[in-house]
Amino acid sequence: MANVRLGVLGYGNLGRGVELAVRQNDDIDLVAVYTRRDPEDVEVETEGLAVKPAEVLETGEEPIDVLILCGGSATDLPEQTPHYASLYNVVDSFDTHARIPEHFDAVNAAAEAAGKTAIISCGWDPGLFSLNRLMGNCILPDGADYTFWGKGISQGHSDAIRRIPGVADAKQYTIPVESALEAVRSGSNPELTTRQKHTRECFVVLEKDADPNEVARQIETMPNYFADYDTTVNFITKKELKRNHSAMPHGGFVLRSGQSASGAKMLIEYSLKLDSNPEFTSCVLVSYARAIARLSAEGKTGALTVFDIAPAYLSPLDGAELRAHLL
Amino acid sequence: MANVRLGVLGYGNLGRGVELAVRQNDDIDLVAVYTRRDPEDVEVETEGLAVKPAEVLETGEEPIDVLILCGGSATDLPEQTPHYASLYNVVDSFDTHARIPEHFDAVNAAAEAAGKTAIISCGWDPGLFSLNRLMGNCILPDGADYTFWGKGISQGHSDAIRRIPGVADAKQYTIPVESALEAVRSGSNPELTTRQKHTRECFVVLEKDADPNEVARQIETMPNYFADYDTTVNFITKKELKRNHSAMPHGGFVLRSGQSASGAKMLIEYSLKLDSNPEFTSCVLVSYARAIARLSAEGKTGALTVFDIAPAYLSPLDGAELRAHLL
Repeated sequence: MANVRLGVLGYGNLGRGVELAVRQNDDIDLVAVYTRRDPEDVEVETEGLAVKPAEVLETGEEPIDVLILCGGSATDLPEQTPHYASLYNVVDSFDTHARIPEHFDAVNAAAEAAGKTAIISCGWDPGLFSLNRLMGNCILPDGADYTFWGKGISQGHSDAIRRIPGVADAKQYTIPVESALEAVRSGSNPELTTRQKHTRECFVVLEKDADPNEVARQIETMPNYFADYDTTVNFITKKELKRNHSAMPHGGFVLRSGQSASGAKMLIEYSLKLDSNPEFTSCVLVSYARAIARLSAEGKTGALTVFDIAPAYLSPLDGAELRAHLL
Repeated sequence: MANVRLGVLGYGNLGRGVELAVRQNDDIDLVAVYTRRDPEDVEVETEGLAVKPAEVLETGEEPIDVLILCGGSATDLPEQTPHYASLYNVVDSFDTHARIPEHFDAVNAAAEAAGKTAIISCGWDPGLFSLNRLMGNCILPDGADYTFWGKGISQGHSDAIRRIPGVADAKQYTIPVESALEAVRSGSNPELTTRQKHTRECFVVLEKDADPNEVARQIETMPNYFADYDTTVNFITKKELKRNHSAMPHGGFVLRSGQSASGAKMLIEYSLKLDSNPEFTSCVLVSYARAIARLSAEGKTGALTVFDIAPAYLSPLDGAELRAHLL
């Protein structure tokens, strides 16, 4: 079978992650990075990798089997994914949970009309965590779901801190509360408040003359983002922030705690510990891009999610090899 | 959609587990238990549940959408699954890993010829653990797999002890070595010997006049089963065995420890903690029976494994509900 030819739109952390992930998959080639910036300004890591202006995608003639969309969920993907799904098979990691249904419908309509295949909301949450929530619910219908995130940097919370007057830069770690995790693991199916599940730790660089007490107060009382959590605010220097908080670790836990009809307790736990959140997400995107290329070749059209794809499609191995070695 | 109508062949721990699991799934009905014993001798838990002789299945006319085969992997399933796959859609939990390829081929040939749909090797290992091995390998191609089992009772090892002269009864627990698990979680990708991964703990009831030292020696030196492990042998009374070791707990861990092309370390961990091994396996069987009924209705034929089934098929919810609530 010919190699899967990928294109990437957007060369931020995720696009760079896809470039790296492709190196670990012999059956997948990265054909080009497409960018809305001046291609001259985009320095890719891989020698010889083409960087092209996004406009060339409009012909629908770029030599790619799948286009991975590496834009943001707030404004990029709601426009980009339906648009490009009318031209190419696409993969995105749209992660605004509440807006998934409308995003799915828009992408599905575009892909169906064009005879293309798309997967949305592919990554680890939504993505692998969703798969585990689904499987847990099916297998243990009498039970409770628990999802914990971290320890890891939340981009949204870091951004929220940066918008406070007097803040030069900031990083925010979401941290699961170990005792809450243990309570879930005990099988007691605890009801946990927001505050009981996660704490938030902030590392903040102040602008000159900013009032640390006022900044801390604004963080700790910020509705939705921090007010419902036990929050720690640490003020550090720009240098310290760069040295100690430039990595993008993340992870988390999905648990399904349930019981059989006889009352026997069962616990399913799935967890990720990731030194690099974007690089891991990119690994997931590339695996699902392989699946999308195959499903498209089989004639499947429209939008899909991780729920709709048989796991064998993710693998470069054939069914007989999978059964012999991994079943 | 009409309820899925199940039949169960064999009423041991697994068949009883299916009977229980069906109670937790409103869209699934258990139509009958089929048995090779005298139906009069089979006491089912559910009032009014039909118990029929296995021979009636031969007509191919029993009013069931899927037949769950609850026999053993050693001798029952290699014969039963291909046979019944020529008459009904079937589900089995065949777990002799080394013989899966030939079993698959036999079931596939029978099911294809009859236009039926089958899933083999469905449970947690093979089954859910296999899914996690597959996903881990796809997402982190540069990495290592680790599977630990326990703490739980190994039927095979318990049987092996019972065959020793002088042993009246026995139960054997397989126990993962916590320090080995921690070494894997550290990301160091250790090479672990059999002895380093699991210990074995045996609870043995002796026959009158049996020599405990000789029995212990025979257990500890038994090739394949115990010789490569640190094994503890405890002699207890028949009463103690019944009181303290009648439950069938099990569980285990599947880990994929890998790294991205930049060297960022990633760990995926999946674990199960089960108060009842057979009841959990039955929950998995029933979820996949739902999937098989649907796939058959869609015209899919032949043998499948957990690798070949999109997770959405396991759920009673439709795609829109799944996307809105679980993605």
